[in-house]
Amino acid sequence: MKVFVIGTGNLGSHLCRAIEAVSRVVDVAFAKAKLKQPQSQIFLKGYYNHSGYDLEDLKATRIDDLALLPEYDLVIIATPDDLIATISNSIQTNAVVVHTSGSVPMDVLSIHSNHGVLYFPQSFSKTRDVDFSEIPICIEYATTIAQERIEAVANTLSQKRHYLDSNQRKQLHLAAVFTNNFVNHCYTIAQQLLNEQQLDATLLEPLMKETLRKAIDLSPVDAQTGPARRGDHQTITAHLELLNSTQKEVYKSITQSILNTYGN
Amino acid sequence: MKVFVIGTGNLGSHLCRAIEAVSRVVDVAFAKAKLKQPQSQIFLKGYYNHSGYDLEDLKATRIDDLALLPEYDLVIIATPDDLIATISNSIQTNAVVVHTSGSVPMDVLSIHSNHGVLYFPQSFSKTRDVDFSEIPICIEYATTIAQERIEAVANTLSQKRHYLDSNQRKQLHLAAVFTNNFVNHCYTIAQQLLNEQQLDATLLEPLMKETLRKAIDLSPVDAQTGPARRGDHQTITAHLELLNSTQKEVYKSITQSILNTYGN
Repeated sequence: MKVFVIGTGNLGSHLCRAIEAVSRVVDVAFAKAKLKQPQSQIFLKGYYNHSGYDLEDLKATRIDDLALLPEYDLVIIATPDDLIATISNSIQTNAVVVHTSGSVPMDVLSIHSNHGVLYFPQSFSKTRDVDFSEIPICIEYATTIAQERIEAVANTLSQKRHYLDSNQRKQLHLAAVFTNNFVNHCYTIAQQLLNEQQLDATLLEPLMKETLRKAIDLSPVDAQTGPARRGDHQTITAHLELLNSTQKEVYKSITQSILNTYGN
Repeated sequence: MKVFVIGTGNLGSHLCRAIEAVSRVVDVAFAKAKLKQPQSQIFLKGYYNHSGYDLEDLKATRIDDLALLPEYDLVIIATPDDLIATISNSIQTNAVVVHTSGSVPMDVLSIHSNHGVLYFPQSFSKTRDVDFSEIPICIEYATTIAQERIEAVANTLSQKRHYLDSNQRKQLHLAAVFTNNFVNHCYTIAQQLLNEQQLDATLLEPLMKETLRKAIDLSPVDAQTGPARRGDHQTITAHLELLNSTQKEVYKSITQSILNTYGN
């Protein structure tokens, strides 16, 4: 089963490496056992990127012209969201075509009779190692052929498979914005506050870690503490006086949401 | 050095246990070495709580009447913030008196000539184990005598000591609200969104962990990603349509703060 990846950014580059790593391991195992590999064996046959640079650690071939795509079994579009439809419409292939976006519906790929989605709710960076076996894989498919090929790739990467339709995936992606983007920005504001008073940036690291552990152990709704949780309006007022106008709006909206959640 | 703890809630109960555990270890060590213990040796001599219940795993005595306080060397007030001044004013002692609050200024204790603060920027729960050696201890003191006794206790608990005045501590406490209370509420909203679509509550745990690791490794300001970071107003608009009015206000204020931070 020949896989082609379009886009070698934060996610695409890691996907290429993970698929090639899996097939290398399997190659070695079959060679040792002196067995012929089954046709279902997955390997990365090629990749494309807009800027035309090689991923030099890979054996797979870079293809520069998507119009010249040879026959693959699965094409994974791992580009930014706003390019997916255009790229999908520009390639001619009999392969199963999937994208990897949280917020783009599956049916933007409907020009291809067999299509689907492989979504990883994780934050990827080129410079950080990824262990796909730790990451849930969210799958959607339009046909049985798409299902078989998507599951074959998913199975090689992780045992954590979930079947989500486009609406569920969109909602998960939004939840991921709160979990990643907004949590990280709360950390950023905390750092701004420490910096203003020349306080050591690492002072709150033990609290960052305990906050995460406690939310996972107890569930976040049960782990909530603080002035808004206990309806302590005196402390809330004192805190607002220490913040600049942008920080104040963040403080007020989250505080109001906590007050609403717990009926304070 | 005889220590007395007032308040055995989330922090106070752990403090009692930690101080008693340290003195037990030292007792055994001196006994083994057949040495007389130095007078500076710290031990928990007694504690008080409002509801009059024993911490049964402790050797220290519970005292029910703060007016009958015998002579101690250090009294730690670990009660809720709004009780600190009243309790401080109601006890007569020659001891060094400290409180453990992030947001209450040191000088509410000024009726006692030797006073100070021992603040731990961490989230404590009665049911969760605490390793004080991992937690920074923030110290403030009014006199040299207060300094000596506070440092003596701090040294037995952790090597991570920081000297903060009341303004710095108040700012640190506010930063801790963003780091703990507000981060946790972002997790809560994410869970609400997953629940609405009957999605598995654990789907975002790998992302929660990676978000923390990345913020610590890169610094949160450099780790920021997402629609607001890249100025993607189309995705922001689509997200707002999926949220209820309270969630929408949180989304808008944090998004605006990210847009301001990165000049988008």
